[in-house]
Amino acid sequence: MADTLWGKGAPLDAVIHRFTVGDDPVVDLSLAPHDALGSAAHARMLAHVGLLRAEEARALVSALKALHDEARAGTFTIRPEQEDGHTALEAALVERVGEPGKRIHLARSRNDQVQLALRLLMREEVLTLGARTVELAGTFLDFAQAHANVALPGYTHLRRAMPSTFGLWGMAFAEGLLEELEALRGVWARLDRCPLGAAAGFGVPLPIDREYVAKLLGFSRVQRSPIDVQNGRGRHEAAVLGWSCSVAGTLEKWLWDVQLYSMDEFGFLKLPDAFTTGSSIMPQKKNPDVVELARARCRELRGLAHQVEAVAGGLPSSYHRDFQLLKRPTLAALTSMKDLLVVLARLVPVLQIQADAAARASDDTLYAAHHAYALVAQGQPFRDAYRQVGREIADGTFRPDRGALTATHLGGAGNLGLPQAREELAAARAWLDETHRATADAAARVWTL
Amino acid sequence: MADTLWGKGAPLDAVIHRFTVGDDPVVDLSLAPHDALGSAAHARMLAHVGLLRAEEARALVSALKALHDEARAGTFTIRPEQEDGHTALEAALVERVGEPGKRIHLARSRNDQVQLALRLLMREEVLTLGARTVELAGTFLDFAQAHANVALPGYTHLRRAMPSTFGLWGMAFAEGLLEELEALRGVWARLDRCPLGAAAGFGVPLPIDREYVAKLLGFSRVQRSPIDVQNGRGRHEAAVLGWSCSVAGTLEKWLWDVQLYSMDEFGFLKLPDAFTTGSSIMPQKKNPDVVELARARCRELRGLAHQVEAVAGGLPSSYHRDFQLLKRPTLAALTSMKDLLVVLARLVPVLQIQADAAARASDDTLYAAHHAYALVAQGQPFRDAYRQVGREIADGTFRPDRGALTATHLGGAGNLGLPQAREELAAARAWLDETHRATADAAARVWTL
Amino acid sequence: MADTLWGKGAPLDAVIHRFTVGDDPVVDLSLAPHDALGSAAHARMLAHVGLLRAEEARALVSALKALHDEARAGTFTIRPEQEDGHTALEAALVERVGEPGKRIHLARSRNDQVQLALRLLMREEVLTLGARTVELAGTFLDFAQAHANVALPGYTHLRRAMPSTFGLWGMAFAEGLLEELEALRGVWARLDRCPLGAAAGFGVPLPIDREYVAKLLGFSRVQRSPIDVQNGRGRHEAAVLGWSCSVAGTLEKWLWDVQLYSMDEFGFLKLPDAFTTGSSIMPQKKNPDVVELARARCRELRGLAHQVEAVAGGLPSSYHRDFQLLKRPTLAALTSMKDLLVVLARLVPVLQIQADAAARASDDTLYAAHHAYALVAQGQPFRDAYRQVGREIADGTFRPDRGALTATHLGGAGNLGLPQAREELAAARAWLDETHRATADAAARVWTL
Amino acid sequence: MADTLWGKGAPLDAVIHRFTVGDDPVVDLSLAPHDALGSAAHARMLAHVGLLRAEEARALVSALKALHDEARAGTFTIRPEQEDGHTALEAALVERVGEPGKRIHLARSRNDQVQLALRLLMREEVLTLGARTVELAGTFLDFAQAHANVALPGYTHLRRAMPSTFGLWGMAFAEGLLEELEALRGVWARLDRCPLGAAAGFGVPLPIDREYVAKLLGFSRVQRSPIDVQNGRGRHEAAVLGWSCSVAGTLEKWLWDVQLYSMDEFGFLKLPDAFTTGSSIMPQKKNPDVVELARARCRELRGLAHQVEAVAGGLPSSYHRDFQLLKRPTLAALTSMKDLLVVLARLVPVLQIQADAAARASDDTLYAAHHAYALVAQGQPFRDAYRQVGREIADGTFRPDRGALTATHLGGAGNLGLPQAREELAAARAWLDETHRATADAAARVWTL
Repeated sequence: MADTLWGKGAPLDAVIHRFTVGDDPVVDLSLAPHDALGSAAHARMLAHVGLLRAEEARALVSALKALHDEARAGTFTIRPEQEDGHTALEAALVERVGEPGKRIHLARSRNDQVQLALRLLMREEVLTLGARTVELAGTFLDFAQAHANVALPGYTHLRRAMPSTFGLWGMAFAEGLLEELEALRGVWARLDRCPLGAAAGFGVPLPIDREYVAKLLGFSRVQRSPIDVQNGRGRHEAAVLGWSCSVAGTLEKWLWDVQLYSMDEFGFLKLPDAFTTGSSIMPQKKNPDVVELARARCRELRGLAHQVEAVAGGLPSSYHRDFQLLKRPTLAALTSMKDLLVVLARLVPVLQIQADAAARASDDTLYAAHHAYALVAQGQPFRDAYRQVGREIADGTFRPDRGALTATHLGGAGNLGLPQAREELAAARAWLDETHRATADAAARVWTL
Repeated sequence: MADTLWGKGAPLDAVIHRFTVGDDPVVDLSLAPHDALGSAAHARMLAHVGLLRAEEARALVSALKALHDEARAGTFTIRPEQEDGHTALEAALVERVGEPGKRIHLARSRNDQVQLALRLLMREEVLTLGARTVELAGTFLDFAQAHANVALPGYTHLRRAMPSTFGLWGMAFAEGLLEELEALRGVWARLDRCPLGAAAGFGVPLPIDREYVAKLLGFSRVQRSPIDVQNGRGRHEAAVLGWSCSVAGTLEKWLWDVQLYSMDEFGFLKLPDAFTTGSSIMPQKKNPDVVELARARCRELRGLAHQVEAVAGGLPSSYHRDFQLLKRPTLAALTSMKDLLVVLARLVPVLQIQADAAARASDDTLYAAHHAYALVAQGQPFRDAYRQVGREIADGTFRPDRGALTATHLGGAGNLGLPQAREELAAARAWLDETHRATADAAARVWTL
Repeated sequence: MADTLWGKGAPLDAVIHRFTVGDDPVVDLSLAPHDALGSAAHARMLAHVGLLRAEEARALVSALKALHDEARAGTFTIRPEQEDGHTALEAALVERVGEPGKRIHLARSRNDQVQLALRLLMREEVLTLGARTVELAGTFLDFAQAHANVALPGYTHLRRAMPSTFGLWGMAFAEGLLEELEALRGVWARLDRCPLGAAAGFGVPLPIDREYVAKLLGFSRVQRSPIDVQNGRGRHEAAVLGWSCSVAGTLEKWLWDVQLYSMDEFGFLKLPDAFTTGSSIMPQKKNPDVVELARARCRELRGLAHQVEAVAGGLPSSYHRDFQLLKRPTLAALTSMKDLLVVLARLVPVLQIQADAAARASDDTLYAAHHAYALVAQGQPFRDAYRQVGREIADGTFRPDRGALTATHLGGAGNLGLPQAREELAAARAWLDETHRATADAAARVWTL
Repeated sequence: MADTLWGKGAPLDAVIHRFTVGDDPVVDLSLAPHDALGSAAHARMLAHVGLLRAEEARALVSALKALHDEARAGTFTIRPEQEDGHTALEAALVERVGEPGKRIHLARSRNDQVQLALRLLMREEVLTLGARTVELAGTFLDFAQAHANVALPGYTHLRRAMPSTFGLWGMAFAEGLLEELEALRGVWARLDRCPLGAAAGFGVPLPIDREYVAKLLGFSRVQRSPIDVQNGRGRHEAAVLGWSCSVAGTLEKWLWDVQLYSMDEFGFLKLPDAFTTGSSIMPQKKNPDVVELARARCRELRGLAHQVEAVAGGLPSSYHRDFQLLKRPTLAALTSMKDLLVVLARLVPVLQIQADAAARASDDTLYAAHHAYALVAQGQPFRDAYRQVGREIADGTFRPDRGALTATHLGGAGNLGLPQAREELAAARAWLDETHRATADAAARVWTL
């Protein structure tokens, strides 16, 4: 605002230019390596169907490989006047290989470039998210195994309720993440279709071979409808972010538990110093900033997902420029989620269990229901047993046989189901490895001249 | 408010009672048949492990079958003082079979009842949603096939852009729904785990057999962690609503298209009278209320999903009473979605194509890019071709060979991919049929004495 | 779903009818008294400008008064085939007064009825929300005054940080609500414009007197633009719900505090029995269900606000049938908010302070920063003071002069600003009283024949 | 991801550092000038109450003025290892003025700095938003006046319904914005309280003068409760973003109208070339990118508001590190909103009205209801008049007297209420000017030594 409230600001052209370009020059840097790969596959397909000469395709692929590597290394740049990364890529191509660079745009539109680059990027990100979730789930399993029999009060309504263990607690998050890893395959299935060839949303009257390029890039199939390719903007992003939010919903619970259990009022956990900060004015403080920020990231993700949903919604079919605004929140969410998974995978193994405090808090009253059940199993009607236990607690005479009251059914504190969980985790890891290898092999094929 | 702004209102007890009971007496009517089925399975398991005598289990199962049928028929009632449906069900059991009715609560908590009933309900609803989506996708395929070659302008940026057809348009929504039907299996996988035995969230110290009851009810496996069972409240609802929102996102686009194409300004479609209303004051009006309300339902779903997400989030692990507020928006969303799918499946087949108007709007300029591509394929550089076409359009001399410019690649207007889509639809239908049969068989097994 | 997954369901007409009518027959019962009042004002205006004879207006006003009273008493009914409450009201009018009943629709559309009834309803609800917020703010002030000097640890990052008091804690929520009460006037200003006369959104070519009817109903002015009247659907609801969410955001914090402080791990508060429930299986439990449900209501409100926002957004100007779906979430939110305010106003005064436990938790370390400040005020550099305090705490020699370290600036524990807060509360109450009286007087004028 | 899915990434310290610092070094650049101003006011207050010597205060104020100017000019920098802008500011102070730089932190915490800087920033931004809204509302008024009597069809349900004019259309958005300008005062009232002195949320035991500093900075009063100051994080941001969303809700409708009216299918408007772009492959295209992006910005804002709401919600009272994540979406939303208002204020005056096309579309049938009303006013029962008009339309004999059917009541096409709107706009502008002058004067006072 500076000095005057009614200043007129920049000239129209600059204002409009800035408004339409938006964040593209920054955001598109993430897309550039994928755009290079997709463009190379397109070039090979054009040569395959005779729309490009073999040596032209070779020149293009070779130059695109160099651009890909530069983009990965962070040395590819988008000049402001180029407006977006797709223009910058083609300009670089023309600069480096001349005439054939101009032919890469044959039988595709910029929309095609955007769609394919986004699809390849999300495919890669989903595998990374999966891999980091596997790592994190593994740390929860190790935690559960290491502390399988260490007592911890179980809370319902945030009130001490039943006997539990650190093992039971850790397993909850491992199993929550295993569910997500299975669900991730459904998200992958959405992304495992090649959009290339949709052009501006109605196909092209040239004999392109969409199955060829799909196979070349390691997609299971073609996303056939060119209109649906456009309609998918936002839908795919929402699927990936929805999955991320579901994971974050589970992590948020764990973070809240850690936040509480590490308070002096509970004392069940200590956070290592590397995960806390001091106060600039309170010498006695040790603040759990990392836990708080991680918890906030979980909630922030919901806002980012809503942003994607809001921008994508409320429109007729086919392409609208509105979609440009999908890129920023999507990339922000993916980056945040990846960081979150890494940070937590480092925190879980170094959490310091305070077994004594947790044992002290695990008093006999936690066994009230268990004991009542035991009496019922011995033939007493439940209401009578319930009342008897209530009386004993009031009298101070309640002495349950804690050892005998461990749940031994599958999933109980005495039977955590670790082998089953390990097996499921291994399956998730194997699927990710195999899928990742397949996409890496496909990329190698594209680059191999 | 009535007369006075500062009136004191109802006495405390009534206020608190109403506040805690909330909508349960109404909402739980939907849960009752599932609660009856789940309770019967629980009774059989108790008998299986020797915690209940065979004749007690028989009496319970028989009474629960009757209650199930009454709940399905809408004759089961929940009295306000019973507060929720689970209490009402047990009260009815005790009333009908006496002592054994009191024993059904052995080795489970009310939480167990809620969790299992919700899981069974959502399992059923997901299959119903799937079946209705199959129906709707089928109407889009039929539509696309019937009007495969009828011209329609293709829009980008809501500006006439490229030649398209009603076939291409219809296929977009069929293919969008086919993606959802594939993704639905991922949602199903989340629900295909039996929660029973989690009790209040920490298991029970009785020799229950969680695998037995899971198999009896047709679940693939047990949701092992009792804490994760609690943590799943909201997560599963969000998965089902997230899927619904994704479907609705595709339908919203179609509805917006229909809304526009049926305006006089476009004239490409007419809505049958049964789907329009008149105006109370404007004799000339024919309003597309059904289309508008359907479109609004698509957006409303997002709000309901946010409600679920907001209520489920921001909490530590395990059970909190907050979860009670998940039921209303979940059921409202499921009901709305089912209605929406039915209404649209009835609208698609009766939409009246106005081929002449659509053909008039499909003028030669739509072929500008296609023609430029054709010139390029003949060897002309794209920029030259682009400029030549621009000049011809300006001169009024542009005469593209429209017939030669149809896209024949997979997914193009000349190659819609109907056989592939039919095959995918049949696969979706087969999976739903098979899955539905398996759950129906499981229910029959539970009831069979 | 019942037996078969592919059943065809109800006939088309019934399906469409149910889809378009939606919840109107239920939801509109809340609107009916306001519709009656608005209709009476319209009738008087028609008579005033000579479009209705005086005796016709008298008959209409008299019949509408009776209908208003029936609606307030809950005896007015809407038959399903009438579809909505506005039709039902006019039908009742015609039935009771004959011919003039048919003339009430002159120079207005059903849209006019809906708009005015909604505006009057929201005006009333906003005053009620204000009054209940005043009551609740008053209980916080009383609480702060009663426990002004009772020690309570102050937390930052959910870690004990600084000395605080129950007085300081209570004042926070009083002051938060006082801010809301001031902001409520801005919401009121949005609603304080009379929409009547917009008709279907483009006015009517009859000499109606919009200022007359606005004044008659106690509005400050006319919402002039008929298109903006339509555009306001959703905007006004969002303003009221946005305000409610802001209030709920403050209350949520208090509820979370209560939830934590009443845990055994803290022990600073006890909840009276009327606000807790037992467990059906754990005899030792006392669950804070009311606190949890109230907290969940705060979050649920956000979802309802998003629903309103989602339904209202994404549309061109003027009327769309989509707006019908705004009514349900708006009314649900208003009802929930009113209940919440009442329940909390009953809880605050009966919270049981556990001064001893809070004092025990308020140990010397809380005074570390305060003591360092004191040393600084005596001339010591802050970093030195900070280190000295750190050393003393480590040594166990830290003995701050707690009495001397109370903050006496405005808003500090020793100077809560109660008089200022009382004054602001009285001003809010006076404004509500005056505004309520003005609307009540206006209604009385409308009814007075 | 690069080559391997399971790479271990950066070392822990770097990961944690990046995670906790987040965007602060960038985001805080916006806060720096406000932090400098607030710090100067704090220094003056310390001198005023004797906690700082006069010459120390002078040195600080002088150095802070220089830092403020550098921050405004974009030359102030935050080094990554400084983590945030508040640390950077104090470091610069110490570097420039030595010992007194260390004393500025007396009686305040970093939290105080953040709170005050955010409040001052939002105060400034709200005035800027107001000023730009005034400008835009003015362009709508000018538009309405210039085209007051140019016919335009009025749509309901997106179907031609009633006669309207470009004047009536333009006034709708002017009046919508005037409502927002009035409501903005309510938002301002929330921000018009000085938070300084809350320290970490529980005050300080030093004789600071909170009223003095509040007055010095031009605040009406002190936000007394130190806990409420913390609780206000997110609440104030939500109020500003909620207002922005409401404005955007109105603008979105206008943008949708423009998008439709400028289609060939309508032809009522043309967009100037500066606001359109071409297609890289379709020579005939002129795309309304600016309108689409502006429309998307309106929806994006909702997502940003949800992000603020999500991060701020779900927490107990007082400070949590979670709040750090409020800054990014708040600043993104404010920047986006300001750009949007500027771009639209430039578009409104240059929209090209196509009066002929709009007149052609405004056929006699639009007058059906109006004509029926006219017949009623002449004594015919409405149902008869309605039927007669319907018959005449069907016969092709309908010839309404269009000139006689203009609405002349306030707000009608024949009586737009331009003078009232001009007056309200002038009042809004005057309030903004006066308020801005007061804050500018206050800042000048702070800097004047």
